[in-house]
Amino acid sequence: MEIITIKDIARLCGVGVSTVSRAINNHPDINEETKAMIMQVIRENNYVPNNSARNLKRTDSKAIAVLIKGITNPFFSNMIKIFEKKIKEKKYSFILQHVDNKENEVDIAIELIKEKKLKGIVFLGGHFSHPDEKLRMLNVPFVLSTIATMENLDKSICSSVSVDDFKESYKIVDYLCKQGHKKIAIITAPMDDESIGMLRFNGYTRALKDNGIEINKNLIGIMKDELESYSMENGYAVATELLNKNEDFTAIYAICDSMAIGACKAIFDIGKTVPEDYSVLGFDGLDIASYYNPSITTIRQPVEEIAEETIKILFNVISKKTLVEHKTFQGELVVGQSTKSI
Amino acid sequence: MEIITIKDIARLCGVGVSTVSRAINNHPDINEETKAMIMQVIRENNYVPNNSARNLKRTDSKAIAVLIKGITNPFFSNMIKIFEKKIKEKKYSFILQHVDNKENEVDIAIELIKEKKLKGIVFLGGHFSHPDEKLRMLNVPFVLSTIATMENLDKSICSSVSVDDFKESYKIVDYLCKQGHKKIAIITAPMDDESIGMLRFNGYTRALKDNGIEINKNLIGIMKDELESYSMENGYAVATELLNKNEDFTAIYAICDSMAIGACKAIFDIGKTVPEDYSVLGFDGLDIASYYNPSITTIRQPVEEIAEETIKILFNVISKKTLVEHKTFQGELVVGQSTKSI
Repeated sequence: MEIITIKDIARLCGVGVSTVSRAINNHPDINEETKAMIMQVIRENNYVPNNSARNLKRTDSKAIAVLIKGITNPFFSNMIKIFEKKIKEKKYSFILQHVDNKENEVDIAIELIKEKKLKGIVFLGGHFSHPDEKLRMLNVPFVLSTIATMENLDKSICSSVSVDDFKESYKIVDYLCKQGHKKIAIITAPMDDESIGMLRFNGYTRALKDNGIEINKNLIGIMKDELESYSMENGYAVATELLNKNEDFTAIYAICDSMAIGACKAIFDIGKTVPEDYSVLGFDGLDIASYYNPSITTIRQPVEEIAEETIKILFNVISKKTLVEHKTFQGELVVGQSTKSI
Repeated sequence: MEIITIKDIARLCGVGVSTVSRAINNHPDINEETKAMIMQVIRENNYVPNNSARNLKRTDSKAIAVLIKGITNPFFSNMIKIFEKKIKEKKYSFILQHVDNKENEVDIAIELIKEKKLKGIVFLGGHFSHPDEKLRMLNVPFVLSTIATMENLDKSICSSVSVDDFKESYKIVDYLCKQGHKKIAIITAPMDDESIGMLRFNGYTRALKDNGIEINKNLIGIMKDELESYSMENGYAVATELLNKNEDFTAIYAICDSMAIGACKAIFDIGKTVPEDYSVLGFDGLDIASYYNPSITTIRQPVEEIAEETIKILFNVISKKTLVEHKTFQGELVVGQSTKSI
């Protein structure tokens, strides 16, 4: 078979080689019709762009990577779409990189920076407890988005956008106390958690104390190791145990909406109702929280605003407008049908 | 700053350079404790692996890429986990590649093959209507997983695993007819759809015909272009329109569970109940379908088996045990609380 070169394509199209290159590489600076025509000719001629030339071209192009822990978490769905849109608006290409639970996101980032000549990075989800020296190895701007950072993290070396998990958790539990609830069970992360689990649990205990309610250890349900964390299944299993304990309570606060939905189902399955028999509360403000029956009382994290602000800050740092920025958004207490006052 | 080399690390650890290399590259053939010790020394000394050497190593390593359309679709969540597990069991590394709706997955695959020296590819989701010549450019084994393939696709050049969307859709609508329903609304894809939307819609019309029921165009609700396709929001909007039409019907069949949940919410919001006033049916068998209240009658796709079979076939082709394989799984009609006989 005759080898088709980029020059042949250019000749067939009646354009220059650089125009063909722009079409292949999705360069913004090319007329859409011209591009369509070139791509048509490329297809008709089975032209395969030369790899090394192409890589050269691509490393020239500007890319932002989003490294995500928990890619299957519905909480991130809308954020991913906004990242993609905003990054492409800036004429950067968008790389979505999945990070395994056991992988070190900073190592992956260091590797990506070299491979892809990244101009910026967003770390999304999970928690972040890397030594400062390690973070200093990241020689491109980066932003931590909806990541629980530990207090000892040096805030002068990275930017961040999130809600205050402690404060928001306090807010929803305090609301429940003010509705007259005194016996409030919680479904939470293991006690050695250092992430949002710990922060949200601390918000719960503080709100109870401030409302003069003693912590009852029997009402603390810990999500199960053997099940996926923060899942409906886990919420269902832990709620079922709580309900079978013969311990009296009027409400279950699950530290995420998915577990709150599992808790609701556990309540239905023993023939009880929500909120008549038990109030149920979640956290996050997933779409499903409002579509569930009953809709779930929750803290809605402003994910769209968080995603937009993340990109805004990243580009501020890239353009050297700012060195670092930290932004904490307010969550919104959304009162659904799953809670009642007593 | 003194430059630390891999030899320095090996010396500090009292091991050979190749052992350090294995630790860095997550090679399976290294003692876990040795690896932990090496990584510790690497961290303490801020050693950054040499990029080119590392790339060389990595391109040696065997990788499988999963290219996914609709990464935020909950239907894929469990599949992704199984792909990751099975691929790692085979000592291959796992690359998850997000494909934008507007991107051409075959182009992305061709590029990845070159960049990463892939040994195999899974295409997940979306539909597939690439010319055969284009597919022949893929010079590594690949499997289409849960992808609606068009009938004219040459089955000798690619493998596939999925359910029969037409047949399964027929099954659930036929079940509903046998329960005495005659006026069955549908929430489906635009009529020019060439993917699962068309197949599931055809299953609906055929089942109605075979049960002696005439198609009523007023009961066909088309998902809205301006909303995310196959979303709860879209199901809610279309169901609301159907309910406001003053057209009589007893059931709504949404061609995916997310839209079925949206439809339920629309019914609740006009003060009606499920299944007393309207039966609601979905398709897919998402976790949320069983956690919803009421649980949704649906076709459960055996996603775990589909994912496992996909990898099995891929490795059969890689090891040249087979050239191509096509496997169609049965879906399971799961009767939930959202339907009743009339």
